[in-house]
Amino acid sequence: MSTPEQVVNDFIAAIERKDIEAAGRHVHDDVRYENVPIDPIIGRDAMKATLEMFLGNAREVDWVVERQMVHGSTVANERLDRFQIGDGWLELPVAGFFEVDDDGLITLWRDYFDMSSYTSQLADLSDG
Amino acid sequence: MSTPEQVVNDFIAAIERKDIEAAGRHVHDDVRYENVPIDPIIGRDAMKATLEMFLGNAREVDWVVERQMVHGSTVANERLDRFQIGDGWLELPVAGFFEVDDDGLITLWRDYFDMSSYTSQLADLSDG
Repeated sequence: MSTPEQVVNDFIAAIERKDIEAAGRHVHDDVRYENVPIDPIIGRDAMKATLEMFLGNAREVDWVVERQMVHGSTVANERLDRFQIGDGWLELPVAGFFEVDDDGLITLWRDYFDMSSYTSQLADLSDG
Repeated sequence: MSTPEQVVNDFIAAIERKDIEAAGRHVHDDVRYENVPIDPIIGRDAMKATLEMFLGNAREVDWVVERQMVHGSTVANERLDRFQIGDGWLELPVAGFFEVDDDGLITLWRDYFDMSSYTSQLADLSDG
């Protein structure tokens, strides 16, 4: 049985491989996925579709976990989420909070970040 | 001697009272204060000036700590930072990370949030 931190680490590793099916196996059917600036996304299928949108145009995905803290079933991290778009890298600082249930499934994934830091870099790199 | 969590709690309580002098006594001379979307602010005086800018036009300040985790000298929290501007409330979801040194002084305060969620509400409330 994986610890909450191992579950989160495996989830992020799947994302870095752009293996959305594998990422989906680490979340609960009714996972709540919040990108804080926008409306919450509910359910594994909606999460996978959103992840596909974020990862779809990235050649490489590299999420650098700079700090990670665990308290019971909750994991918090500071990350630099990097996406290779064309020849450049989009780099987004993110604070993430995860809750993992007794079955080792992620029930909450909440990311705090500055939306315009994402969209402005994406526009620049997509033009290039 | 206060624990790191008590230091952070006392610091936030001072901010809620808009007591910037008291808040300043909880931070190191060379505190690093990062609002992630913008450039880091270095030093107690610069932090106090920035805090004055954020708090200055608020009638009331109410920072709701929704979750707080501690690991050694690091404290992480999810907050809803509320500022009463005119007759309305600006409400900003924030993820904060704090490092507290052996003297009970905050050496790092890093807040993740969506800048446009702040600026758009501020503009709406200032017009009202």
